[in-house]
Amino acid sequence: MVEPALRARVGGMHAWPAEMAGYAFGWCEQGGEPRAGSSGKGVRQALAVLCAEAAGAPAEAAVDGAMAVELVHTFSLLHDDIMDGDETRRQRPAAWKAYGTGPAVLAGDALFALAFEVLAGSPGPHGGAAVRRLSRDMADLVDGQAEDLLFEERPWTGPGAVEVGAYLRMAEHKTGALLGCAAALGALLAGAPAATVDALATAGRQLGVAFQAVDDVLGLWGDPVVTGKPVHGDLRRRKKTLPVLAALAAGVPASRRLAALLSGAGPLEEAALREAAGLVEEAGGRAAAMAEADARLDRARACLRGVPLAPEPAGRLLALLPYVVGRAG
Amino acid sequence: MVEPALRARVGGMHAWPAEMAGYAFGWCEQGGEPRAGSSGKGVRQALAVLCAEAAGAPAEAAVDGAMAVELVHTFSLLHDDIMDGDETRRQRPAAWKAYGTGPAVLAGDALFALAFEVLAGSPGPHGGAAVRRLSRDMADLVDGQAEDLLFEERPWTGPGAVEVGAYLRMAEHKTGALLGCAAALGALLAGAPAATVDALATAGRQLGVAFQAVDDVLGLWGDPVVTGKPVHGDLRRRKKTLPVLAALAAGVPASRRLAALLSGAGPLEEAALREAAGLVEEAGGRAAAMAEADARLDRARACLRGVPLAPEPAGRLLALLPYVVGRAG
Repeated sequence: MVEPALRARVGGMHAWPAEMAGYAFGWCEQGGEPRAGSSGKGVRQALAVLCAEAAGAPAEAAVDGAMAVELVHTFSLLHDDIMDGDETRRQRPAAWKAYGTGPAVLAGDALFALAFEVLAGSPGPHGGAAVRRLSRDMADLVDGQAEDLLFEERPWTGPGAVEVGAYLRMAEHKTGALLGCAAALGALLAGAPAATVDALATAGRQLGVAFQAVDDVLGLWGDPVVTGKPVHGDLRRRKKTLPVLAALAAGVPASRRLAALLSGAGPLEEAALREAAGLVEEAGGRAAAMAEADARLDRARACLRGVPLAPEPAGRLLALLPYVVGRAG
Repeated sequence: MVEPALRARVGGMHAWPAEMAGYAFGWCEQGGEPRAGSSGKGVRQALAVLCAEAAGAPAEAAVDGAMAVELVHTFSLLHDDIMDGDETRRQRPAAWKAYGTGPAVLAGDALFALAFEVLAGSPGPHGGAAVRRLSRDMADLVDGQAEDLLFEERPWTGPGAVEVGAYLRMAEHKTGALLGCAAALGALLAGAPAATVDALATAGRQLGVAFQAVDDVLGLWGDPVVTGKPVHGDLRRRKKTLPVLAALAAGVPASRRLAALLSGAGPLEEAALREAAGLVEEAGGRAAAMAEADARLDRARACLRGVPLAPEPAGRLLALLPYVVGRAG
């Protein structure tokens, strides 16, 4: 229901940013040739639609919100890959590698503008509140991305080191804001009372942190065929992620050996990467990240159970949570 | 009235994008040190405020609109300098040269989000219409930037060459959309009737094309001390601008010599640049661009005179037009 509307709106853009956007959505190859297969799990749109239904509205009420959140998600992928220097995404060249940095900036801008156009043009009485929500959550998203980029410059240990708490606050913005926005827009457009909107938004943010924690684990130990990312890629780039920060904070001997390895000059070779990953695991970093994910999922569940929701969609919403973070039993 | 509010809003952003934004606004040096002197002519905010007053509202009604349009203007400078590869702006390194490409993308995104946040949070009954206007005009801005970038790949003559009409449509989007948005937001927030909003928006767009035409002339013959751009800079980069396209379309002998010069391989040296500029002038390109600017100013004046406006602010609005394009007597 969301994807046809989304394709129609993106197709209405200028042909060049529309092609780049289609590439970033996974709908087409470079050159515009249609591409079969999945274009992501669609969890943001599912979250928006289920939150509208849980608030007692038909799914249709959430379509504009679901589109807006998919648009800003793809906007953020386009721009974040530039900022992070990520050259591949879903086993293809990132859009900025395929089309150039400037054009990829432009395509992101086009999607950002379209997201606001979709929401601002949404019929019904809740479009204004939805636009306010989207703009605030986008400000949080930018804050989170800023923090994440600044983390790169900071030391692994000692004064100025990134603490686990600071990392989690960053993730709540960088990753949580989008999922929180998806949930909030669904509820808002359904006309839900403020307490329900807040609870669903908070659940979405917690879900986002859980997702980030698991994604960080996959960035270290995930199967490249599944994740589309190189094995140990986050370690090679010395990216500050939750398992590593938790391992460093554990204060065990492996923590100190890990810090020495990461603080060393020069690139980390294969053997060093394997050793570092082993030390993260030995110091409990992997377990800590997974425990954080589970705790955040519990918090999200508690948020959903704390407000009156329509039982059937609420049940599907509860089932969606572990699926989003890849923790489905 | 607008600038203190604007500085307060930008100051409320994350400190890092806030510093980059302050640099792009011309408020501070790299590192955050305050910077004395002008931060641009402020024509967009003046246009928004005068349009509100011309529509019978106090200047205060336009402040949120004026802020939004200054924010998206600086957003577009930040991102366009990346896309266009422009390394200097106002005699300083462009933000992406000073802070890096990724951070400059981020700072632009922060300002874009803030513009929508400011408008969406605007009290009164017209915030929703203002957000719709901003989002549509931003889509036009992106379209114009896309066209401008695509022009670079196209030949100077023959099939696929950029026609003057296509250039003017691009300018109406790339430059006109922002000034049209400034005028429209002022009128909208003042509660003006639709016909007045449309007339003022059209006047703003025409003003934008006039500005672009004069800016193109300055890009060829302007004093680098005044323009902050290198002399013949647009020609050196073989940028398709109105005087050059008009000169090529004139079909005189100088047109053909100019086409041969521009189509040649290798960089254009100083002597070739001087010759090309001379040929543009000889073929009437400079005069054509200035005539286009004057014709667009006349159209803008006609728009203003076609709707009922408060006489005193309307008079100041008419006086602002030639000032914006540097055509003040």
